[in-house]
Amino acid sequence: MDKQAQDIPRIGVLPPGPLDSICDVDGVTVGHHTLAEGALQTGVTVVRPHGGDPYLDKVPAAVTVLNGFGKSTGLVQVQELGVLETPIALTNTFGVGTVANAQIRSAVAANPGIGRGMATVNPLVFECNDGYLNDIQALAVQESHYAAALAGASARFEQGAVGAGRGMSCFSFKGGIGSASRVACAEPGVAYTVGALVLANFGRLPNLTVAGRPFGRRLAQRLDGGLAQAGENAAIVPEKGSIILLLATDAPLDSRQLRRLSLRAGAGLARTGSVFGHGSGDIALAFSTAYTVPQLAEQPMPAVAMLHEARIDPLFEAAAEACEQAIIAALWRAESVTGRDGHRRAAIRDAAPDWRDWLARTEF
Amino acid sequence: MDKQAQDIPRIGVLPPGPLDSICDVDGVTVGHHTLAEGALQTGVTVVRPHGGDPYLDKVPAAVTVLNGFGKSTGLVQVQELGVLETPIALTNTFGVGTVANAQIRSAVAANPGIGRGMATVNPLVFECNDGYLNDIQALAVQESHYAAALAGASARFEQGAVGAGRGMSCFSFKGGIGSASRVACAEPGVAYTVGALVLANFGRLPNLTVAGRPFGRRLAQRLDGGLAQAGENAAIVPEKGSIILLLATDAPLDSRQLRRLSLRAGAGLARTGSVFGHGSGDIALAFSTAYTVPQLAEQPMPAVAMLHEARIDPLFEAAAEACEQAIIAALWRAESVTGRDGHRRAAIRDAAPDWRDWLARTEF
Amino acid sequence: MDKQAQDIPRIGVLPPGPLDSICDVDGVTVGHHTLAEGALQTGVTVVRPHGGDPYLDKVPAAVTVLNGFGKSTGLVQVQELGVLETPIALTNTFGVGTVANAQIRSAVAANPGIGRGMATVNPLVFECNDGYLNDIQALAVQESHYAAALAGASARFEQGAVGAGRGMSCFSFKGGIGSASRVACAEPGVAYTVGALVLANFGRLPNLTVAGRPFGRRLAQRLDGGLAQAGENAAIVPEKGSIILLLATDAPLDSRQLRRLSLRAGAGLARTGSVFGHGSGDIALAFSTAYTVPQLAEQPMPAVAMLHEARIDPLFEAAAEACEQAIIAALWRAESVTGRDGHRRAAIRDAAPDWRDWLARTEF
Amino acid sequence: MDKQAQDIPRIGVLPPGPLDSICDVDGVTVGHHTLAEGALQTGVTVVRPHGGDPYLDKVPAAVTVLNGFGKSTGLVQVQELGVLETPIALTNTFGVGTVANAQIRSAVAANPGIGRGMATVNPLVFECNDGYLNDIQALAVQESHYAAALAGASARFEQGAVGAGRGMSCFSFKGGIGSASRVACAEPGVAYTVGALVLANFGRLPNLTVAGRPFGRRLAQRLDGGLAQAGENAAIVPEKGSIILLLATDAPLDSRQLRRLSLRAGAGLARTGSVFGHGSGDIALAFSTAYTVPQLAEQPMPAVAMLHEARIDPLFEAAAEACEQAIIAALWRAESVTGRDGHRRAAIRDAAPDWRDWLARTEF
Repeated sequence: MDKQAQDIPRIGVLPPGPLDSICDVDGVTVGHHTLAEGALQTGVTVVRPHGGDPYLDKVPAAVTVLNGFGKSTGLVQVQELGVLETPIALTNTFGVGTVANAQIRSAVAANPGIGRGMATVNPLVFECNDGYLNDIQALAVQESHYAAALAGASARFEQGAVGAGRGMSCFSFKGGIGSASRVACAEPGVAYTVGALVLANFGRLPNLTVAGRPFGRRLAQRLDGGLAQAGENAAIVPEKGSIILLLATDAPLDSRQLRRLSLRAGAGLARTGSVFGHGSGDIALAFSTAYTVPQLAEQPMPAVAMLHEARIDPLFEAAAEACEQAIIAALWRAESVTGRDGHRRAAIRDAAPDWRDWLARTEF
Repeated sequence: MDKQAQDIPRIGVLPPGPLDSICDVDGVTVGHHTLAEGALQTGVTVVRPHGGDPYLDKVPAAVTVLNGFGKSTGLVQVQELGVLETPIALTNTFGVGTVANAQIRSAVAANPGIGRGMATVNPLVFECNDGYLNDIQALAVQESHYAAALAGASARFEQGAVGAGRGMSCFSFKGGIGSASRVACAEPGVAYTVGALVLANFGRLPNLTVAGRPFGRRLAQRLDGGLAQAGENAAIVPEKGSIILLLATDAPLDSRQLRRLSLRAGAGLARTGSVFGHGSGDIALAFSTAYTVPQLAEQPMPAVAMLHEARIDPLFEAAAEACEQAIIAALWRAESVTGRDGHRRAAIRDAAPDWRDWLARTEF
Repeated sequence: MDKQAQDIPRIGVLPPGPLDSICDVDGVTVGHHTLAEGALQTGVTVVRPHGGDPYLDKVPAAVTVLNGFGKSTGLVQVQELGVLETPIALTNTFGVGTVANAQIRSAVAANPGIGRGMATVNPLVFECNDGYLNDIQALAVQESHYAAALAGASARFEQGAVGAGRGMSCFSFKGGIGSASRVACAEPGVAYTVGALVLANFGRLPNLTVAGRPFGRRLAQRLDGGLAQAGENAAIVPEKGSIILLLATDAPLDSRQLRRLSLRAGAGLARTGSVFGHGSGDIALAFSTAYTVPQLAEQPMPAVAMLHEARIDPLFEAAAEACEQAIIAALWRAESVTGRDGHRRAAIRDAAPDWRDWLARTEF
Repeated sequence: MDKQAQDIPRIGVLPPGPLDSICDVDGVTVGHHTLAEGALQTGVTVVRPHGGDPYLDKVPAAVTVLNGFGKSTGLVQVQELGVLETPIALTNTFGVGTVANAQIRSAVAANPGIGRGMATVNPLVFECNDGYLNDIQALAVQESHYAAALAGASARFEQGAVGAGRGMSCFSFKGGIGSASRVACAEPGVAYTVGALVLANFGRLPNLTVAGRPFGRRLAQRLDGGLAQAGENAAIVPEKGSIILLLATDAPLDSRQLRRLSLRAGAGLARTGSVFGHGSGDIALAFSTAYTVPQLAEQPMPAVAMLHEARIDPLFEAAAEACEQAIIAALWRAESVTGRDGHRRAAIRDAAPDWRDWLARTEF
């Protein structure tokens, strides 16, 4: 566990990987491009499943739509074909079209036959609505921002109010990008890593649960005056956010098994206090790095022995725990941000600097 | 809240209905037939959605399959037509066929035209595997047991090791039937009830979470020797159970909205420590009592103003909380049972008689 | 093509296998048990995917529910786990529970650990409503009938008014069991077989299309008086039937690809004149014999190179064509049957003995 | 039936509406913007479900993905919430992002609160790949083109090589936009209209079936030399197209029923010779104009008596037939187009000027 992890509440019982991030799954990298000027508080985050070209070497994947109040694009084809063929992009709700265009241009640049003999390419862009802090109506995300995020992808990346997470809110505090990983022992001597990266932009404060404790209820009581001044009553703010939950694993799973894995993101999400609220686009995607599927039918298909279904429970536990941890990471690693019309989201660690005491006092 | 509720851990923040059971939704009744002799520890539970004939007056309904490792029958038609047309039956895995036959005979007796001019009837039977305590291979459930459970349906019913719950295990303790309800305020002055009834037969003890506390981990430590003697290592027992989660509401929801509601059962389930384990058939069904749909096309269709989608979040919260509470109720209300081959499941309240202290000590 | 094929209208352009039946897929066998006494005109048909025990060596499979007005059981688990683990059984709507019980007993007899340490078994029973000819309310199907059908399974089997097809009606004529196969060339030198077996019990006569010709409209005109005497007006009889479409292939497909294949059964069905009518339970299942998945996690998982997705179109064509041909086979191979209350369904070849002329005259 | 209909092959038996187009459903209008200069042969088509603002007055809708090899956007939210809230846009595969942006800007212009207090808006854009005729890599579709198509929407609109249909190919001939309608009698005295509009860009010529006749096989034989010269062998060209099938009806159906209706588009599609080919993104959407759902929770919800399910079969028949007719309309109404790199798609009516004789000669 890296030092950072000591600075945030620790979730669950499984061991994390060395980075406690999605990049503990070998080959996965993450890049950001952040806009942070005045009313523009937004950005793009890119997750690359491997170092190559995913159009040529497709990545097995699957999706669970927990709550479909969302505008992500590309899910239809992932559900049909069980692969992704671009890096995964995250941005704000109104940036989806532009980032999709950027993905198309990027893929065509690398493969000039796309749409001219070769099949077209399926952009895969997820989104949350950062309209509280960001002037979303400005459609400020540009195609070049996707390219910049892609170019900067690395196994070491920032979390919190960066990239697509720049303008996101979570439980009435600052949210954004969080990541974590867990190591699952599928059978004696055989361990796999499950990594999670979330774009967290959901939650009503009174529901926030941290490592099982009703953290949000207590915090809401302390802050009641402050929130009221901000024109918000924490107890009755409807759920208008969203969360995107990405899972990576090095376990050999096929698309059907990855769909099962992706659903378990919902268990981790529920434990932080979500009921998959009506207005929240809660979507999970899982992919495996254990093998790739070639674009060209002339190339040999991989002959992979998938994980036996009876060995999959440890991965399910790891997926739920990594997602829960990643949400807590997004909250604890985000700095305060002030955006459009003076709207502000505070860092939760500033509002509850004594959080360690709170959690310790309730040690069971 | 009735007196019973004081005897079990209290979940969440929403107010329960007067009975804190699914029968707080007006018109819903529940009946059991229990087999409890030696190696036969099993039974049938029936939930009647209203006092009439659901074949003639169908009930809007929908299903979410959280994990489809299960043998329940009747889901295909509910998913297509959005109604149920029999009482809902619960039993053990190998009792499904016989109870389905009983439902057919019961419907035909009331409507002799079924299959002879009138459409056939869709049996709806859910199941969990009680094979640890019950000699499931005996196929002991008889058609008459369904009839007896149906005849005894009432708004006051027992919970715990009764009916279909007789032989069920939950977190290595005795599980079975649990129920709860929550009142949701959809808008000022407009309250609806969401009731839950679960057949709880799932869970690995170290994962058991009660009102957010890691209850199972602590209990497992205390019991380690005892479990080891019983030939079980709580930490590594794979998930082989299942849970059926039934939700009733008096809110005017259509089938699409009820599907959304049924998914939120998963949030409540996750909070007790489940990740929807591979071997667990975790299935949720939600129905509304606000209106019925006539079998006969000659009868007028109901003209119902459904709940506006933006008002649905309180129902989602109520569904999650009622399910979590119902699972805790199943655990706390079950008595110890000894079944086939001397297998025994203890009542959790006997193993943790000091549970009130445990929970109080961790008050946040 | 065997001689039989010359006796029925020939569908499509792809070559059939040597038997023009589902048993052209190596290892697949079919057995029937038929009840044909007075008002009891029903039965059981069993399709064995291979000669071994499918509980121990599971068969990759997937399902498409075209129209879910049906009572088949076992689909939930096939959809989750992507395998079948019993022979596939077909029977009448009210026989499902009993045949499911028979499947359980058969599996337990072979594997006494089922439900006692080993996982339970998932019965897989499909049904159509034969209530026009058969006294379905008698629940005449017994567990022994399943055992008899299973014991008699062979690569050579009868079609038409036999087994589960005994009491079925199709386009107001006698329907039942039909089968066919097509050979698909996925790439030069690589051919796979797709076999279909249908339980055909659907269709309004005016819609019947044979090899593209409006056969039913013409036949309805000829028969108008006759049908009127039978108390039926072909033009306005609502769709109350169903069809089960089973597809087998020796191509190496995973469950996701088999789901895609199973959907193409709907294309073949549509070409015979179906619009997947409201009251018709139209369900397709596809399985592959190219590999099996072991029950026991200790056994090695198969390492299979699946068919490249870009090679799958010929299999889709074969699936559609085999299903269309199998429906025509069910109609043309069925003999006339008289059942309960003097109800009678005539063989279509008797009503249109000059069908060869009709089809020839319209050669395009 | 209008005069146009006499100029194309007539499909089926149900009566069309006065226009034989989707605009026979009252209130529906259609607009195009066409790019037709050199290598740019593409465009945008817009279907407005009613004359108002669909963000404020949402339209009940549902989707069936027959084959998800497609890049359409907006489906996730339609599937969750059962409504559409923008006009429906059609364009080429690489135009989706830009048209989605245009929809966002158009909705925000009309409702400045979107994304600032009001919920965001869900762009709904369908696509096919027109890369054979159009230089799709140019990303030529601009936001203004959407606005132009929207502004020109009318109940009278052109079909064939216009709007989004400009560059589409169908069965190796020119495809594009086609429309049709059918009147369905749900019960004596109660008729509803089902209208279809397709963007047809699919099909292998040998499979083309017109009113049941193997039209494509005959045409392929006649043209063999010509196609060979064009570097194409009709028999082995893989399916690389797509089709979007939109259905409108004035029948009072809820989203669940509309999903059922949308599936029946597949029956019509299959009858033209499609097996929902692997590379073809075949997606159907159905909406009802019988009522709307308000954006604002403060406004009253409609109290609608939906159509009784047992009355729905005539609508299913109408949906299948209208879709089949609309595909034939797209083929027969398209003019020849020459696009990028001298690629050309001929009008089928030029290749088979004697089509009336062909069809007449095979009158059954």
